[in-house]
Amino acid sequence: MSNHTSFTNLNVVCLAGGVGGAKLADGLARILPPQNLTIVVNTGDDFQHLGLTICPDLDTVMYTLGQVANQETGWGRSGESWRTITAAVELGGADWFRLGDLDIATHLVRTQLLQEGQSLTAVTRHLCHHFHIQPAVLPMSDQPAPTHIESDGVIYPFQTWFVKERWQPPIHKIHLPEDVRATPQVTARLEKADLIIIAPSNPFVSIDPILNAYPIRPIIEDLPRAVVAVSPIIGGQAVKGPAAKMMEEMGMAVSATAVADYYGDLIDGFVYDAQDAGLLEGSDLASLCVDTIMRTPADRARLAQDVLDFALELT
Amino acid sequence: MSNHTSFTNLNVVCLAGGVGGAKLADGLARILPPQNLTIVVNTGDDFQHLGLTICPDLDTVMYTLGQVANQETGWGRSGESWRTITAAVELGGADWFRLGDLDIATHLVRTQLLQEGQSLTAVTRHLCHHFHIQPAVLPMSDQPAPTHIESDGVIYPFQTWFVKERWQPPIHKIHLPEDVRATPQVTARLEKADLIIIAPSNPFVSIDPILNAYPIRPIIEDLPRAVVAVSPIIGGQAVKGPAAKMMEEMGMAVSATAVADYYGDLIDGFVYDAQDAGLLEGSDLASLCVDTIMRTPADRARLAQDVLDFALELT
Repeated sequence: MSNHTSFTNLNVVCLAGGVGGAKLADGLARILPPQNLTIVVNTGDDFQHLGLTICPDLDTVMYTLGQVANQETGWGRSGESWRTITAAVELGGADWFRLGDLDIATHLVRTQLLQEGQSLTAVTRHLCHHFHIQPAVLPMSDQPAPTHIESDGVIYPFQTWFVKERWQPPIHKIHLPEDVRATPQVTARLEKADLIIIAPSNPFVSIDPILNAYPIRPIIEDLPRAVVAVSPIIGGQAVKGPAAKMMEEMGMAVSATAVADYYGDLIDGFVYDAQDAGLLEGSDLASLCVDTIMRTPADRARLAQDVLDFALELT
Repeated sequence: MSNHTSFTNLNVVCLAGGVGGAKLADGLARILPPQNLTIVVNTGDDFQHLGLTICPDLDTVMYTLGQVANQETGWGRSGESWRTITAAVELGGADWFRLGDLDIATHLVRTQLLQEGQSLTAVTRHLCHHFHIQPAVLPMSDQPAPTHIESDGVIYPFQTWFVKERWQPPIHKIHLPEDVRATPQVTARLEKADLIIIAPSNPFVSIDPILNAYPIRPIIEDLPRAVVAVSPIIGGQAVKGPAAKMMEEMGMAVSATAVADYYGDLIDGFVYDAQDAGLLEGSDLASLCVDTIMRTPADRARLAQDVLDFALELT
């Protein structure tokens, strides 16, 4: 790739939620030296279930970067089995959140280390080490920072709305907790970041919770040379998950343009899919229109390369 | 069995630890109406591991009465698999306590219900219901009551000594916690008990912790018509586990007689194995010498019948 810039000395921070974020993070990890890449992950989805501390977005990022993610389901580990959860349901345990036997191992080790007093940051570092992941994967915060979804007067914990209710109750309001603090590790990485990449994750329940952890948003507004977001909306639809439905219910247009408008002044550039070619032409915002769907590992690396090249042009 | 007494109106409480206690409890459950049988189980072995609350003796009793116990290992469930613990060890989890995939389901459900504020008694009732167990299985206490083993100046949590150290460090002292209270459910069952049966469990680390939960010992000393213990020592050896080794290290003779002496005035009768025939002849203590080894379910029922017949003669 001789026509591409060398990224050796570029510090890149990627803000990521679940599947889409994990795939772009994996693409970046295939290109950048590990010491230059930081993935800051949403923990607003985290919850307690069957006595375990479960961090769905951290797990998706870890499993994806660790090359053990289940490609079919989009969550959990490959080669998964279901003996424990089946037995737990027979003992009256909840059946709405499917925990695989391999996946449970992650939650057991995490829960034990947290109970022993380690921070979620330290526990994640421990797990990443064992998954042979070299870039820094950082939870946005070591505090619990649960996202809640309000619908018809009911306030759902995020996973209850997302998994148990299959994200069907219409969204009236998203509640993010006040006074969430980013970790010092996240703050330090952001302060020396040259580029911030906002992954094609849900802007409202994956990216906003990260920006809500103080001082992530003001640092991103002030410091880096360039901030680039990748649209999770393609052809008026979400690649995966409830983003499009949420936009409709919040009275927004369902389009890549609306996502760019939502990020507003926070971003310096926007990447959207070739299916939407021409959509941002004439906009004041710098944009890149390329194939953004990541079906294969090669797709991830290609998109990561395109995003990095575009971001560097902006600086 | 026309030559046997009817036990319809007899309230029986069995004090039990792990394997031996569970087998005799199962024998009693095959004979007595379920509403007349209570099994009070040692919780001194309980501990936290991989974020889970594990109650080894309660689990052995439940799995045995639920007919899902692993007959080969003497612990855990039959048809067990090991995917989760194998994956947890790969993630740096401890490898010394083997948790099967089915077994973990029990711990997950228990841990969740405890975290939700239910008592161990209520959680055990919930689990027993799902294992189709009809007699009352009661933890001796709802408080944590951890047994510790002192050896050469080191004080081990019980499972660390028992499983991790394979009960090899010589015992210098057994530490039972002060101020442990029996549950009201245990107290109520003991107060209306006609017979108390002390199962062939370890007197020092299975039965003593139960007696140590106030007011179990004084109730047993005062109230029931008869208290009968079954020897866990046969031919100078423990059927299973460290009882014989502990007796040696505490300077006791290793014999059924020494067990009877250890229980002393607490018991009205003593059942010991045919291999030790004649051992308690001439003793002031009423005794029954029969085959006490329980290889099959029929053996369990036969021993239970023998013990009940013998106990009734004493009243």
